[in-house]
Amino acid sequence: MNIFAFLFSLLISIAAFLLAGWLYSWVNKQDSNNEKINGIAALIKSGANTFLKKEYIILAKFAGVLAVLIFVFLPEPIWKGSIGQNLTMAFAYLFGTVFSAFAGKIGIFVATIANKKTAEAATKGIKESFLSGFRGGAVMGMAVVGASLLGVTLVFHFTGNATMILGFSFGASSLALFAKAGGGIFTKTADISADLVGKVELGIAEDDPRNPAVIADNVGDNVGDVAGMGADLFDSHVASLAAALVMASSIDAVLGANTTVTLVFVYAALGLLSSIFGIVFAKMGKKGSPTRALNLSTYITTGIFTVLTAVVTLIFSFEWRIYLATIIGLLVGVIIGITTDYFTNDEKKPVRNVAEASKSGPALTIISGTSYGFLSVLPAMIGIAVSAFAAYKIAEPLGPGYALFGISMAAVGMLSIVGMIISNDAYGPIVDNARGLAEMGGLGEDVIRITDELDSAGNTVKAVTKGFAIGAAGLTVISLLGAFISEVNDAAIAQGLVSAGQAFITGFDIMDPAVFFGLLVGAAVPSVFSAMLMLGVNRNAERMVAEIHRQFEEIPGLLEGKEGVVPESDKCIEIATTGALKELIPAGLFAIIITVVVGIFGGVYAIGGFLAGNIVSGLLLALFMSNSGGLWDNGKKFIEAGNHGGKGSDAHKAAVVGDTVGDPFKDTAGPSINTQITVVSLVASLLAVIFLTMSIF
Amino acid sequence: MNIFAFLFSLLISIAAFLLAGWLYSWVNKQDSNNEKINGIAALIKSGANTFLKKEYIILAKFAGVLAVLIFVFLPEPIWKGSIGQNLTMAFAYLFGTVFSAFAGKIGIFVATIANKKTAEAATKGIKESFLSGFRGGAVMGMAVVGASLLGVTLVFHFTGNATMILGFSFGASSLALFAKAGGGIFTKTADISADLVGKVELGIAEDDPRNPAVIADNVGDNVGDVAGMGADLFDSHVASLAAALVMASSIDAVLGANTTVTLVFVYAALGLLSSIFGIVFAKMGKKGSPTRALNLSTYITTGIFTVLTAVVTLIFSFEWRIYLATIIGLLVGVIIGITTDYFTNDEKKPVRNVAEASKSGPALTIISGTSYGFLSVLPAMIGIAVSAFAAYKIAEPLGPGYALFGISMAAVGMLSIVGMIISNDAYGPIVDNARGLAEMGGLGEDVIRITDELDSAGNTVKAVTKGFAIGAAGLTVISLLGAFISEVNDAAIAQGLVSAGQAFITGFDIMDPAVFFGLLVGAAVPSVFSAMLMLGVNRNAERMVAEIHRQFEEIPGLLEGKEGVVPESDKCIEIATTGALKELIPAGLFAIIITVVVGIFGGVYAIGGFLAGNIVSGLLLALFMSNSGGLWDNGKKFIEAGNHGGKGSDAHKAAVVGDTVGDPFKDTAGPSINTQITVVSLVASLLAVIFLTMSIF
Repeated sequence: MNIFAFLFSLLISIAAFLLAGWLYSWVNKQDSNNEKINGIAALIKSGANTFLKKEYIILAKFAGVLAVLIFVFLPEPIWKGSIGQNLTMAFAYLFGTVFSAFAGKIGIFVATIANKKTAEAATKGIKESFLSGFRGGAVMGMAVVGASLLGVTLVFHFTGNATMILGFSFGASSLALFAKAGGGIFTKTADISADLVGKVELGIAEDDPRNPAVIADNVGDNVGDVAGMGADLFDSHVASLAAALVMASSIDAVLGANTTVTLVFVYAALGLLSSIFGIVFAKMGKKGSPTRALNLSTYITTGIFTVLTAVVTLIFSFEWRIYLATIIGLLVGVIIGITTDYFTNDEKKPVRNVAEASKSGPALTIISGTSYGFLSVLPAMIGIAVSAFAAYKIAEPLGPGYALFGISMAAVGMLSIVGMIISNDAYGPIVDNARGLAEMGGLGEDVIRITDELDSAGNTVKAVTKGFAIGAAGLTVISLLGAFISEVNDAAIAQGLVSAGQAFITGFDIMDPAVFFGLLVGAAVPSVFSAMLMLGVNRNAERMVAEIHRQFEEIPGLLEGKEGVVPESDKCIEIATTGALKELIPAGLFAIIITVVVGIFGGVYAIGGFLAGNIVSGLLLALFMSNSGGLWDNGKKFIEAGNHGGKGSDAHKAAVVGDTVGDPFKDTAGPSINTQITVVSLVASLLAVIFLTMSIF
Repeated sequence: MNIFAFLFSLLISIAAFLLAGWLYSWVNKQDSNNEKINGIAALIKSGANTFLKKEYIILAKFAGVLAVLIFVFLPEPIWKGSIGQNLTMAFAYLFGTVFSAFAGKIGIFVATIANKKTAEAATKGIKESFLSGFRGGAVMGMAVVGASLLGVTLVFHFTGNATMILGFSFGASSLALFAKAGGGIFTKTADISADLVGKVELGIAEDDPRNPAVIADNVGDNVGDVAGMGADLFDSHVASLAAALVMASSIDAVLGANTTVTLVFVYAALGLLSSIFGIVFAKMGKKGSPTRALNLSTYITTGIFTVLTAVVTLIFSFEWRIYLATIIGLLVGVIIGITTDYFTNDEKKPVRNVAEASKSGPALTIISGTSYGFLSVLPAMIGIAVSAFAAYKIAEPLGPGYALFGISMAAVGMLSIVGMIISNDAYGPIVDNARGLAEMGGLGEDVIRITDELDSAGNTVKAVTKGFAIGAAGLTVISLLGAFISEVNDAAIAQGLVSAGQAFITGFDIMDPAVFFGLLVGAAVPSVFSAMLMLGVNRNAERMVAEIHRQFEEIPGLLEGKEGVVPESDKCIEIATTGALKELIPAGLFAIIITVVVGIFGGVYAIGGFLAGNIVSGLLLALFMSNSGGLWDNGKKFIEAGNHGGKGSDAHKAAVVGDTVGDPFKDTAGPSINTQITVVSLVASLLAVIFLTMSIF
């Protein structure tokens, strides 16, 4: 690795941390004088910490066991390879979990401060409130991408071995699985239970402080949406760099140079730099809307990245074809975001039609929302397909190994502005919480209206960033398929199956029965994985509903809202936390174990098919669930804005059913599939040697 | 083709028609003396005929246009090939549509007679009523499989060219698309509208004669479930034979013999013969349940087929490996059926849990049902994967071309007992209608109870046969992928791209960007296709609900049930018919056009990936939608049987929402996906020359 690229990456990651620090102190300096709000915010903060602590304890055990397994088996079984290599891999793995956990912790920490500041800032005006929410989210964005770039840079610099980045990446993924899926179960358990008892049974407001699940619901916004989403994108960002670096290293080994690896680092660092600019300059104009401000900052970041990388490519004579592949990835990401917006924006036909259908009852809400969700996968699937195809074709003429590297750079390109994406995304739950605090703190109608507007922008942008995240995960795992082939070939050379410089496998023929076998089984995995998570939410919600009923029955004066009577919120948090982690583990183990079984049964070809099937159906289901969930959410909001009879009408009741169904779709299962396909791809790459040498068929 | 095999196939198909004739006359001889029932049955019959007539008129135009296109372009553009070939292909195509239409027409004709006979037979006892319903359904089973075998036999005998069977098969598929998807939209439009206004708004009984949509709903059972399902399985049966014959011909061409083709016909004919035995001997035992009787007949047929083919294989020295591949297909079909039963049977955990979840409102009904639907895909996907893998490996040692032929024979095996499957499946809507007639005709509680029991058995068995149909379609389209390769290679030889005996392509490498591109786009197609159908149902249901409201408002005395006031049922039938055909055409065209676009854009490799993606996601979604739909249906029935508060309870209301959502899942979109993937596979095979010579990349 070029020392210049190393220092540049290091410098930019440190700059990101500095910016995060400055943003944090800015947010922290804002006013927060309302005692009631501060009290509730403290409850939310302590609830979030309860969850994180419990999660990290379980995760530490899990990571410990995995680290030992890695030490024994990876990259080669210890009795065949070197202890030093295996030890490095185990440490790289642990390093990945720690970095990811650290970024998540910072994000939560700031988010639980920013929510009360944003609520209070809304008393001054929408511009002030927006900035507070946005900058709170940006701390998360900077921490995540700074940690990702720093970690990858350090691991690569000190080991000089791209395979170790796969270990680091696996660490990030296994944490993301806990954070995203566990957090997703937590947040939806609380959300559904609060709604079912509060809104549906008792007809009280969403954030009514009498409801014991309301605090848990607010905690959920933080642990699921802030920490979970951050871990998810940390994972994608690291994985995209890992895949690109594995292939770049192979290319450089042939070239006898380090230009390709250097290019990957420089581009990644420029992406982070562009996000830094975008964040620093983001603010709401005088007459602007918050949605516009968020989108504008994304476009500005995209523009800066496009220009900066072009300049650098010119100066350092990088390959223009790689530049093009990268930019194509980025542009397709933006296009996927825009089409996602079409399906979830309440000014467009799909949301309008679903709201209209709700007049005929919840069944038609579900059928029409499901249908639009199914429709919505097409543009994104075509976008990913076209960008992968184009990146491959553009990079192919550069020589062997470049074609797949081109795809991996499209993924890097799509994820280049992820710092900005995370900032926008974390903004959502912060303002959502701020809205709740404003209501619970009695800040008045005008303030609630402002926070409502900010919240609505958060929802719109969230749908866009989710489409972006899924697209990026798709391209990343496609390039991880390339990384898997690299790993198998390296292993085959090491095992003496082929001589150095020769390829053991070059691809996976669909007509090979092992590949087709893998394709079918792999396609079923995301479906089963999401089913297990959603059933987990259901079971957990049943437990929590029972607890809420108990409290309303047993605590005198709670239901009547008697002064001084407060619900036992911590009991609900406890149920959500324990249940989430209990329900998540079988789903995660299922995905990993079936990968190992298919690999042992059918060998590397079956795994190739398995990964392809997993990617294809994973993308399909993730897009379907995220988009239909977002659509139902906004359909409900559209009716609540006074259409089709507004709140309390039959259409509204039907829309609430749609929204409740959409909750685990969009916040638990849908986005967790991203992580699941990454985890499975990394497991396959890491176990390449084992599948190569120990399979039955 | 061996003359013995030709005569044997001919003989058995004629035997099937004779049995159908005998069964018809038996059913027709049963009593039907209730004037009121006869009147309603006549309305249903005339409604069904209205739909069929309209459908066949549109279909005739559509088929005419396609026949001309086929004549001009297929198997080769007319200016390159021979007019005679193209004319034969166009006729084979038309022949396929006519045979399928004929079988559908007979099925409907008998079903609309059997329903009233079954209702009246229920006054004598459950055994008599069961036999009437079963034998009515068996007419359909015999007509469909007899027509399929006869058509394939004749086309192959007179053309001696397996490619022409693809034309015949495409004819069957294009009709199945109309019958299954169009009928599916019709039946669910009527069902949902009748339920929404009748059960939900007015709280009147399911088959209340005041409801203008009730007759349309009953008509829908016939056009969607009887004719549509028959066309679907006709299509699968023909397609499985087409794929097997294309590959058998290639093998025989190399061998210079006709044993392989002979084997295909003999096995297919033995399958039909086994079904004949199974039908003749089916009856309810003294203390038996109807479910048991139906399942027993399936197992008996399976046993007979296994023994008969073994004897024939021994006598004629067929390859035992092919025998094994065939039997594996059949056994896996049975296993898929049994696992499907687990997810939809009201005595098992999934249905029980969904019913339980319904107590907390419709949102949890939907979430839990969706989750179990997602889970349910796993055993079937693994079953299809294992059977394809095993059949390939077992047949592979026989020589080149045998491996894929083995998969196609597994499909033939799975579909061998399709005559029996269709009989069981058509039984369902007949007894469902009988139940409605018993209620509308006022035959009393005891009779309704008997028809209820018969109906419940129909629902259970229907879930099993649907799993079976999807599994068979899966294996069939996998072997059509093999047929596509055969077609491309034949075309490449004809075009002089490779010399005779050489292969132009042998497979599709997932790492080839064109293949991966196709994989992603192909995977999105079933999702979009089902979305279009379901949105069609929604739009159509909205029109019909408006019409029902109009009638209740404008027809004096209708709502009050005044003597002599009848609803204008024909208006509802008219709306369902016109809407169904209008909504279906864009969906069908979408699937065909995107296939052509991908082929022209990316060539044969992109199409290979496209078909694989289409198969994988098609199976996934078809299984998900069919099973979750069946599960919701039985969950509702379980509650109606008096559990969780029974009819009218909140749990019941929630379960009705689930059932309504499940209706288009299981009866419109889910099963139509089968047809969609077959159509797309056949279009690809037929256009192989065009994609080979005219693609952009």
